Amino acid sequence: MARPKSRFLRKPVEPFAVTGGLTVDEALARMERISFQGRNLATARRIWEKMLSSDATIFLGTAGALSAGGLRLVIAHLIEHRYIDCLVSTGANLYHDLHETRGRRHFIGSPQIDDAALAAERIDRVYDTLASEDEFAKNDEWIATFALKLERRPYTSREVLYKLGEHLWNETGNPGILTAAYHAKVPIFCPAIADSSIGMGLSQARHRDQTAGMVDVIGDIIESANIVIRKPSTATIVLGGGTPKNFINQASVQAEFYDDRVGGHKYAIQVVTDVPHFGGASGSSLEEAQSWGKLSVESEKVTVQADVTIALPILVSALESTSREAADKRKRPEFDPSGRLLVMNGQPLADNRYQEP
Amino acid sequence: MARPKSRFLRKPVEPFAVTGGLTVDEALARMERISFQGRNLATARRIWEKMLSSDATIFLGTAGALSAGGLRLVIAHLIEHRYIDCLVSTGANLYHDLHETRGRRHFIGSPQIDDAALAAERIDRVYDTLASEDEFAKNDEWIATFALKLERRPYTSREVLYKLGEHLWNETGNPGILTAAYHAKVPIFCPAIADSSIGMGLSQARHRDQTAGMVDVIGDIIESANIVIRKPSTATIVLGGGTPKNFINQASVQAEFYDDRVGGHKYAIQVVTDVPHFGGASGSSLEEAQSWGKLSVESEKVTVQADVTIALPILVSALESTSREAADKRKRPEFDPSGRLLVMNGQPLADNRYQEP
Amino acid sequence: MARPKSRFLRKPVEPFAVTGGLTVDEALARMERISFQGRNLATARRIWEKMLSSDATIFLGTAGALSAGGLRLVIAHLIEHRYIDCLVSTGANLYHDLHETRGRRHFIGSPQIDDAALAAERIDRVYDTLASEDEFAKNDEWIATFALKLERRPYTSREVLYKLGEHLWNETGNPGILTAAYHAKVPIFCPAIADSSIGMGLSQARHRDQTAGMVDVIGDIIESANIVIRKPSTATIVLGGGTPKNFINQASVQAEFYDDRVGGHKYAIQVVTDVPHFGGASGSSLEEAQSWGKLSVESEKVTVQADVTIALPILVSALESTSREAADKRKRPEFDPSGRLLVMNGQPLADNRYQEP
Amino acid sequence: MARPKSRFLRKPVEPFAVTGGLTVDEALARMERISFQGRNLATARRIWEKMLSSDATIFLGTAGALSAGGLRLVIAHLIEHRYIDCLVSTGANLYHDLHETRGRRHFIGSPQIDDAALAAERIDRVYDTLASEDEFAKNDEWIATFALKLERRPYTSREVLYKLGEHLWNETGNPGILTAAYHAKVPIFCPAIADSSIGMGLSQARHRDQTAGMVDVIGDIIESANIVIRKPSTATIVLGGGTPKNFINQASVQAEFYDDRVGGHKYAIQVVTDVPHFGGASGSSLEEAQSWGKLSVESEKVTVQADVTIALPILVSALESTSREAADKRKRPEFDPSGRLLVMNGQPLADNRYQEP
Repeated sequence: MARPKSRFLRKPVEPFAVTGGLTVDEALARMERISFQGRNLATARRIWEKMLSSDATIFLGTAGALSAGGLRLVIAHLIEHRYIDCLVSTGANLYHDLHETRGRRHFIGSPQIDDAALAAERIDRVYDTLASEDEFAKNDEWIATFALKLERRPYTSREVLYKLGEHLWNETGNPGILTAAYHAKVPIFCPAIADSSIGMGLSQARHRDQTAGMVDVIGDIIESANIVIRKPSTATIVLGGGTPKNFINQASVQAEFYDDRVGGHKYAIQVVTDVPHFGGASGSSLEEAQSWGKLSVESEKVTVQADVTIALPILVSALESTSREAADKRKRPEFDPSGRLLVMNGQPLADNRYQEP
Repeated sequence: MARPKSRFLRKPVEPFAVTGGLTVDEALARMERISFQGRNLATARRIWEKMLSSDATIFLGTAGALSAGGLRLVIAHLIEHRYIDCLVSTGANLYHDLHETRGRRHFIGSPQIDDAALAAERIDRVYDTLASEDEFAKNDEWIATFALKLERRPYTSREVLYKLGEHLWNETGNPGILTAAYHAKVPIFCPAIADSSIGMGLSQARHRDQTAGMVDVIGDIIESANIVIRKPSTATIVLGGGTPKNFINQASVQAEFYDDRVGGHKYAIQVVTDVPHFGGASGSSLEEAQSWGKLSVESEKVTVQADVTIALPILVSALESTSREAADKRKRPEFDPSGRLLVMNGQPLADNRYQEP
Repeated sequence: MARPKSRFLRKPVEPFAVTGGLTVDEALARMERISFQGRNLATARRIWEKMLSSDATIFLGTAGALSAGGLRLVIAHLIEHRYIDCLVSTGANLYHDLHETRGRRHFIGSPQIDDAALAAERIDRVYDTLASEDEFAKNDEWIATFALKLERRPYTSREVLYKLGEHLWNETGNPGILTAAYHAKVPIFCPAIADSSIGMGLSQARHRDQTAGMVDVIGDIIESANIVIRKPSTATIVLGGGTPKNFINQASVQAEFYDDRVGGHKYAIQVVTDVPHFGGASGSSLEEAQSWGKLSVESEKVTVQADVTIALPILVSALESTSREAADKRKRPEFDPSGRLLVMNGQPLADNRYQEP
Repeated sequence: MARPKSRFLRKPVEPFAVTGGLTVDEALARMERISFQGRNLATARRIWEKMLSSDATIFLGTAGALSAGGLRLVIAHLIEHRYIDCLVSTGANLYHDLHETRGRRHFIGSPQIDDAALAAERIDRVYDTLASEDEFAKNDEWIATFALKLERRPYTSREVLYKLGEHLWNETGNPGILTAAYHAKVPIFCPAIADSSIGMGLSQARHRDQTAGMVDVIGDIIESANIVIRKPSTATIVLGGGTPKNFINQASVQAEFYDDRVGGHKYAIQVVTDVPHFGGASGSSLEEAQSWGKLSVESEKVTVQADVTIALPILVSALESTSREAADKRKRPEFDPSGRLLVMNGQPLADNRYQEP
């Protein structure tokens, strides 16, 4: 008699079958039954679908040169159609978004171009992508001019970015991350704003008027944790690691400090190329995050080891085919990020004290 | 007057636009105008199309656990529909193909499973994929039994693998890499056959009969170079690096030693996750390959830094939509790998001396 | 007659010779003539020596879990003995430093430990390193209590970190990064302070007193650029990428905007494990940095692809053998970071306008 | 009363302390108590020491461009002083060793050199290292001439490499891997010899005489497993992954098939830069190896994620300080690799059948 099959050997790998005319959605469905990162990418779609059918507040973190690299309208799409509820971003992604929303472009180059030749022509290189330094300088001035119109008081990055999106929309009417967030009233946090050209623009505002350009990043910490306290069901999608990854986790950890009901994110997707074994936060595993309480020990989670410029177009194209309605109909928080206090579901969140549970 | 645009700033990045129902082909077309590895993956498709519309002999190299990981029918498809002309593979990919062609399966697991528990149940783990060790042991015996039916003389790996595909087809009638290559008469080389379970199976044949299991891997070197000498227009597609990557390049370098017309591969695609800066061959750049003459200095080439389980399903699904006919109609070499000498376009290639140009 | 040797083939690789009792300094000297990252690590030492014999202001950037991982006293040593002039750090490295300076410890663990078990015991894991979450919570409170003693006005991160080092020294008398910087009057910038437990501590101060915890990170941008304007000869040493890497480069780029004499860093070392081809800033090449003017096109530079926990102990042990005196005697800037304005070589630097050249 | 300390928090991280004049041995001892790859490198030394004080047969696997990169005399030292018992190598490492033993050199270059310029001068690049293609061509001829002196019968790679070392010694008297192995009677296996310039040289011998150049790589499989059957206590040290990593593991797995006493390697060190999550063998974890029985579930093991050109000089310099005597005095197998059959401890090992236990 045949030895009974091991409990480990229940679900066979199904070899990917090639057919012409396959949609991205269908291709990803077939990849669920293969192995390694192909399977993980396919699993990420399923977990995102679960986020959308849950009542979780969905945080998206964006690091790496996603906007310069051609993904800004994907992120804008996620915001506009509310596949996500709150964006945490590096400054660079917002800055390169602004650059294009203002009508400028990034250009297709190559990593083999001689950098001294580029420097001589004042062209900046991001791996295989190029942009004009002079146009960047004009962006900085444009940001400084914008900042000088603000009141002379501290603004959280969330508030200043809302105003920036509004101003950009009024001036350009163009799509992009900042303008989509303005329309959809999706809050954007930029905890490392001082490490970006947006921060540089704000510093130039202060150079012109010594009382301008005060950003209250500590207020951002409190606001983001209060989003979690207000509704402890949360999910995190991280593209590329960096400060957004930790900031989203920190919101949960900090919230739990003041509210026992908070128990870490319920769903987690990360698309990273960094690895755990050097100890850095960008590459840290989602299992490790459970030890900290950043993720619930029961969370559904997946790490996809892939470049975001491959993974995100695939993932979002597939989601758009299957989950657009789910994104529309889901139980999602509604924000008003236009004022000094962030309003969530009709009620303001403090930026100077942690909410009562 | 506006300063004239730099020659470097001619072709703008076009942000990827999300739409539902997108085919893989369409998604990849949009990715041509973004950056980083997304662009490179899209470029790989275009270079493969150029290979198909050229008269180049197309080598495919497969390393990594592609068959265990669910890609064996993709590779079989490439062989069957002649997107490629010659396969160079690690033994593992052929062995795990044989395992499934014989009706066994690999199973979906997780990298978090306790390996002591797996060892206790005689289950072997390949990252997130599992298989039965007892079934593997039976494969080895099956290979040994097959090998004992062969004549007692040295066989190139190419010849022995053809016979193996034939035997497998006769016994199972199932699709797979080895059986597809048998049908399509596409030669397969396995230069590191001694570092694989196929080699282990052959060694078990010799254990039973001390005169069995002689593989002439030096003959493989000569045959593969003679393919290039016979027709010096060649292309290389490498999945995962390893011995196949170098063996395909070596064929060109060795051929050039005997034939001045050979000037390196004309087209090159590599999908790898290894990197150049540690000096190893798997991660070495295609630029470096030009210094050796492995690639022509005018070759069209692209490196895609991605897991093959993501890149290959996307790439081949797109190709199947646009290039199936081109693959059928192209000027391709025809082989007969069934005999002691490999026949190319009706003429045998020596395995014991380099051809005259 | 022998064909003359190519200009490319002048300096042979010298195989590393094994001898017992070798000092780190000697080992590194032998590694200068081997290849790949071994050579690069050895080159980093030579470039650091050149920094020390120049008049350059030396910035050090620290990202990754260096303090938790056992390198905080190496960094403290670099500060104390003035191998560097200015530190830019993630908050985590300063927080884990504070944790140990306050007498707490990190512990040796393993990446295989079950994270649910750790979560149950409130133990936080950083890859193979563990710490008590309850002790972390007490640190946060300690930081909050410290912050409540500060005036109710915005502080740059540089000023608040000086005060933190002073307070820590007065309370503990223990060595560490923050206390060494306090003693050596080396300024520390933490541009992403909002993405760290130090930021969380400051937010808890505000929770107790709604007027506390205002950090002026835009002021940090201006101050750091003014350091460069005051003396445009600069050098950068980056460990691990992240926000410090870009912030140090941004200081140079921003300074150049106001001062033509600034032409990018003259020396650059980066020890990273991230790679360029995904487009992110952490892995970006030093060549790419030249296109932006972050580095001078004539700069001496090296990238070492290695974990900092291997590279830094080796590099600094070797430097300590050969360059301690050079560090002492070099033409270095003297700072007083104790006040609202950073004083450099006896003169204050503005935090609200860019200096005149 | 204080809550009792968790069992997880017993052994604190000890911050690395900088002192001048530190020996490599001392530096590595300090690194045992830090984290991440620094700790792993230090642990590798301790595990190697345990191998030396055990009775295990120690296999060393070498992949990557170690010889071209300046490490051939380190490997020769390990052979000569019997830190290891059996070498499994890629052909490239043996070929580049032969190149220098024959008095030729590799040269210090840069990855930025234009490869078309190199191609024009017939210079081959390995990342930052260069060599003359004409000298390589002469090596190939030299190997062919050597091979023509051999009998016209199949040789295992082990036997042919012994003869090659002998011939090289007789002709040059120079140190190196092949000549050290000849003197120390340490067997070398090269399972992928067909994927290397040594294989190319052998193929050129056959081109001159159609009966030359037969390598019996299946015999290598049997011999290597018989080493394990003869004495089932084994250890593995892998530098760089590749075919040597798997071949050493395969020897153990194949041996266990014929001998129940074999239970996987007792000690394992791997120094790799590849990662597990793409499923390839080079990056596969030592935990995964336990599921296959390649390693004993009780084995002592460590993976060091580092470039070998950094890790190996450090590791071997430290070992040489502490363990030279242990290497001399240990219970090690003695081989005679000079004949058709490999002799181990005075008794021949079959190459055509697996030994009785």
